[in-house]
Amino acid sequence: MAKFEITMLGCGSGIPTAKHMTSAQIVNINERLFLVDCGEGTQTQIWKYRVKLTNLDAIFISHMHGDHFFGLIPLLSSIGLMLARTEDLHIYMPIVMVEPIQYDLDKYCYLPYKVILHGIDTTAREVLYENSTMTVESIPLEHKTPCMGFLFKEKPKANILLPEKCKEYGINCTEFRKIKEGADYITPDGRTIPNSELTKPSDYIPKSYAYCSDTSYCPALAEQIHGVDLLYHEATFVESEKDMAATAGHSTASQAADIALRANAKQLAIGHYSIRYNDEDELLAEAKSVFSNTVATQEGMVISI
Amino acid sequence: MAKFEITMLGCGSGIPTAKHMTSAQIVNINERLFLVDCGEGTQTQIWKYRVKLTNLDAIFISHMHGDHFFGLIPLLSSIGLMLARTEDLHIYMPIVMVEPIQYDLDKYCYLPYKVILHGIDTTAREVLYENSTMTVESIPLEHKTPCMGFLFKEKPKANILLPEKCKEYGINCTEFRKIKEGADYITPDGRTIPNSELTKPSDYIPKSYAYCSDTSYCPALAEQIHGVDLLYHEATFVESEKDMAATAGHSTASQAADIALRANAKQLAIGHYSIRYNDEDELLAEAKSVFSNTVATQEGMVISI
Repeated sequence: MAKFEITMLGCGSGIPTAKHMTSAQIVNINERLFLVDCGEGTQTQIWKYRVKLTNLDAIFISHMHGDHFFGLIPLLSSIGLMLARTEDLHIYMPIVMVEPIQYDLDKYCYLPYKVILHGIDTTAREVLYENSTMTVESIPLEHKTPCMGFLFKEKPKANILLPEKCKEYGINCTEFRKIKEGADYITPDGRTIPNSELTKPSDYIPKSYAYCSDTSYCPALAEQIHGVDLLYHEATFVESEKDMAATAGHSTASQAADIALRANAKQLAIGHYSIRYNDEDELLAEAKSVFSNTVATQEGMVISI
Repeated sequence: MAKFEITMLGCGSGIPTAKHMTSAQIVNINERLFLVDCGEGTQTQIWKYRVKLTNLDAIFISHMHGDHFFGLIPLLSSIGLMLARTEDLHIYMPIVMVEPIQYDLDKYCYLPYKVILHGIDTTAREVLYENSTMTVESIPLEHKTPCMGFLFKEKPKANILLPEKCKEYGINCTEFRKIKEGADYITPDGRTIPNSELTKPSDYIPKSYAYCSDTSYCPALAEQIHGVDLLYHEATFVESEKDMAATAGHSTASQAADIALRANAKQLAIGHYSIRYNDEDELLAEAKSVFSNTVATQEGMVISI
């Protein structure tokens, strides 16, 4: 079975504390790694939880608030020092961040690899990253500064060849790849055999993960992530502080659960807890009362899809 | 007795690891706090060791390598968020750092207090900070980038009044402060009573602490810190790697101890350990063989002078 798992590195908000580090996650899809957000101390969490950064494919930063990126320059610096990476590293971030991050790179870092910063228009939905098996799309979010979420989505698997049919038409194995990708087959005497006769669709259901932080309550978001297997949605406050949440551009645990419900998500993971809470009991109970399959993320937690 | 203690927050070098955080120390002199260097995660260490930052007087940054300042912007940001400081905060750093740090402050921070960056010529010895009881002087160091150490020094205590002499000359108590500060006394009939007749020198020996990191072996340094009560000197490598130390602008444990010996320091604290060492046994043994009163710093260690 294909690996698709998320390691939580930081589940708090605002500042790192004894209980929670600030936002960072590793998304591992078949041993290709993606870092989502990078609060201060993310590299320490990466070493602590033995994440192997040699397979780091790309980094995605949601917005320019310190608790989501203060660990980026230190991490890039350490990757150069420790891993002697030489491969280019692509980082996707709101347009507004590109100039200052490039400035810091130029001033503070001496890297043996090239960092390519992609400035993203956070108001548009677009495919940021694509490889042969998956895509990462941006999700416009509503926050106090340009902000986006990220949708990690496997591609549908290729059709499955029907071997007895291929044999029947005497098809050479050199044709198989094209047919799996959807091509019809032309027999030596010029007849067209439609693809649907030679293959059946894969019954594999592509998996998907949506990271939505930071954002105020935004019901329209549900459409963008409809049917997602796992939704990470910020739940900075409890519902009784929803006015404060709205003012600060954040969501409550109930609101996060409401989005999961509307999106018909299979599972909800909450995080980005305000430092005012001693634990997550109330936030979790509140979310579960709306959407039962909810988990309160903790540092080191790994969720497999 | 006056408080003069140093809390070690980060004793490693290069990158923060599971064993050691990067450079940072708190110098507490009579509950006025000074932060020296600020590697990534310094704020987490500050909260962990329950340092009360409300009394933070000033910050000193030795040089522009990430393991000595990557935690600065995050810390300044958190001080604004958590402590609601309104008082100006003065930070002393090599001239070359002022422009980029000011840039980062402008781009990333929204502070309710003013940060004043002082760009220091690291090739000159100068008094950076002074209050009624102490001074902080820069110490030129030899490193691969402009770098300075810091000498924290109590001022000599005022002379002690001789009460029977004051009584004999009928001196009013309103004159006492001036006399303690060294003034002679003029009697109502115009006679001058020399200060030496009215006071005796305090027998209090002012304490001092020198922070020297990062630096290559530099025997001339000993003169600058002669007689210091406690010397923190980097000991990145063991003596068998002294060539590498020299190339990298660092010192060995033996060299650190040699400086302590030449400076006639009372105690040596070593740190800034290379990540290549699993523990500090060899570094400490090596330093002790040259200068016995040596301690290997660890995070959370507090040294009182």
